Amino acid sequence: MAIIQSTSYSIVIGKNALNALSTFLKKRDYQQLFILCDDNTIKDCLPILITSCLQLKDAEIIEVESGESAKSLEFCAHILQTLLENKADKNTLFINLGGGVVSDLGGFCASIYKRGIDFVNIPTSLLAMADASVGGKTGIDLIGVKNVVGTFAQPKAVFIYPQFLNTLPEKHFKNGLAEIYKIALVADKTLWSLLRNETLLNKIDKLIALSVALKNSIVKKDPYDRGIRKTLNFGHSVGHALESMFLEASTELLHGEAIVIGMMIESHIAFQKKLISKQMLNEINAELLTVFSPMQLPELMPETFFQFLQNDKKNTSHKLMFALPIKIGASKYDIPVKPSQIKLAIKYYNALLL
Amino acid sequence: MAIIQSTSYSIVIGKNALNALSTFLKKRDYQQLFILCDDNTIKDCLPILITSCLQLKDAEIIEVESGESAKSLEFCAHILQTLLENKADKNTLFINLGGGVVSDLGGFCASIYKRGIDFVNIPTSLLAMADASVGGKTGIDLIGVKNVVGTFAQPKAVFIYPQFLNTLPEKHFKNGLAEIYKIALVADKTLWSLLRNETLLNKIDKLIALSVALKNSIVKKDPYDRGIRKTLNFGHSVGHALESMFLEASTELLHGEAIVIGMMIESHIAFQKKLISKQMLNEINAELLTVFSPMQLPELMPETFFQFLQNDKKNTSHKLMFALPIKIGASKYDIPVKPSQIKLAIKYYNALLL
Repeated sequence: MAIIQSTSYSIVIGKNALNALSTFLKKRDYQQLFILCDDNTIKDCLPILITSCLQLKDAEIIEVESGESAKSLEFCAHILQTLLENKADKNTLFINLGGGVVSDLGGFCASIYKRGIDFVNIPTSLLAMADASVGGKTGIDLIGVKNVVGTFAQPKAVFIYPQFLNTLPEKHFKNGLAEIYKIALVADKTLWSLLRNETLLNKIDKLIALSVALKNSIVKKDPYDRGIRKTLNFGHSVGHALESMFLEASTELLHGEAIVIGMMIESHIAFQKKLISKQMLNEINAELLTVFSPMQLPELMPETFFQFLQNDKKNTSHKLMFALPIKIGASKYDIPVKPSQIKLAIKYYNALLL
Repeated sequence: MAIIQSTSYSIVIGKNALNALSTFLKKRDYQQLFILCDDNTIKDCLPILITSCLQLKDAEIIEVESGESAKSLEFCAHILQTLLENKADKNTLFINLGGGVVSDLGGFCASIYKRGIDFVNIPTSLLAMADASVGGKTGIDLIGVKNVVGTFAQPKAVFIYPQFLNTLPEKHFKNGLAEIYKIALVADKTLWSLLRNETLLNKIDKLIALSVALKNSIVKKDPYDRGIRKTLNFGHSVGHALESMFLEASTELLHGEAIVIGMMIESHIAFQKKLISKQMLNEINAELLTVFSPMQLPELMPETFFQFLQNDKKNTSHKLMFALPIKIGASKYDIPVKPSQIKLAIKYYNALLL
């Protein structure tokens, strides 16, 4: 069992993680427990959780639909009202059992209910285990723009039980892998090399622990996203705009799928800006195309795509600001990017897939 | 002009406060400015503000209805969408021009939009000048429960221009005075004596500065309401429950009016619990009845009143927890109170008004 210490909380990873949750609950005298699930985790994960941690058997269960559409003000209102109707007070623990959607939504609600009650994350997807459940960003979407409303709020603990991954379909596994490739690219050459050595993909506990440790070390340096943490947004400027665009079209595009496309397009922008060599661009693209199968984009991207780009949180003074790689395992942030550079990069990306 | 230094921001009080705002704006290079008004401040205060501070002439104006009903998720969504549709980024200043409702609602929206943008408060009511605009509590109501959703978020500055009070009707002046009496009672015997000496009521700048300085010193010691700051909730356990009850009945009861009743009822509870003498109880009631004209309550309070009391943020483990005075200018918090004690105190309160 690995334990990683963050700013004010512990991240427990391994097959004993749910026992660690049980110990955590014994130490703290919460009067009320709430568990937020989606329609998958309520049937696939909740029974396992309760069997391993009997203190949760009388917890109130709140269910939301699975998928990005749950990150709305409407579901937020539903959760807050449920807490209120159950007279939840400050001595309450809110448990997020699910993927990134559940921890983003649930963490946000917990952080604003009575100006903040305690919450813990129990991530059930690889994406949430390796990335979303750690770092204290919470958020919901508004008129199709991803995470535009949210808070910085730290959980009281994160319990990562990798066995939950057995409940996931293959494409959700790849979805999480995308964020691990991203963090390797922006921050750790060694992890990038390990990923290319495929045997690591079978040691999922280790992969999660490495990714979480890396993210945690960056977040501790810059919890409020004012400097180095922005490098974790590599692939996300284009990625989020794609997600928003697909959300509008109601075609499913998973976060990780969008991030892979985002990384490839943004790497070409880094090349255009002479931040990386052609050789490095080729190495990134070749590796990503070996593992992932990203989709072709329309030759002429719709105007909404560029509008969504405008609403990225990293932009300042209406200028698009990207985080871009400068070599494998290193990156820079706050780099101004022009729409024409994005258009050229998309053209290159589409050509690569032919 | 008085300047009070808070945790991370300044509170400027006096007839030059709007010039100070102008200087503040010159120093910072905000790309976009938004001003939140209600239907009163948009006509009574906004023209004065813009005349004194010409940099605001092109600011986007967001208007909400006046009164407590604006502190809803619906208005919150409206404000967030307006920010998003105008592509507000992190380099944006959000200005709350209004009473406590405007700074509670606007501060909350600013604190969750893109995980927090800068905001300043320009209070226009005595309540907001002397109390609500300082301290970093933001919030909205949900299913009738006051401030049950919110954040702790500090403004970048507070500009208090007492001339705005000339735009207010008398009962709104009294509304603010209630919080000044409260802070005197819980924290400053000298201010209490000054209030009894009526001449101070004509020196409104000084009164505001004294109240803000007192509140600020308490908030700096305990910004997150875990200890001594709870004493500022004296009168508010009963007061908020009354407000919620009247909100439901759609009879207007101003915050200050509710707090006066709350202070009188809670003082009797302090007397029942032998925290204060009969003489002190009489002194408090006599003084409050000289200045305010609180209304009679129903002999049998409706069940909803007790339900609202249950949802007070100070409660723990389903026990009602009050902040109560122990002498003039001193108080204690986290004192468990029984419904029977509240019922007896209401009976006593009603008898006093006969």
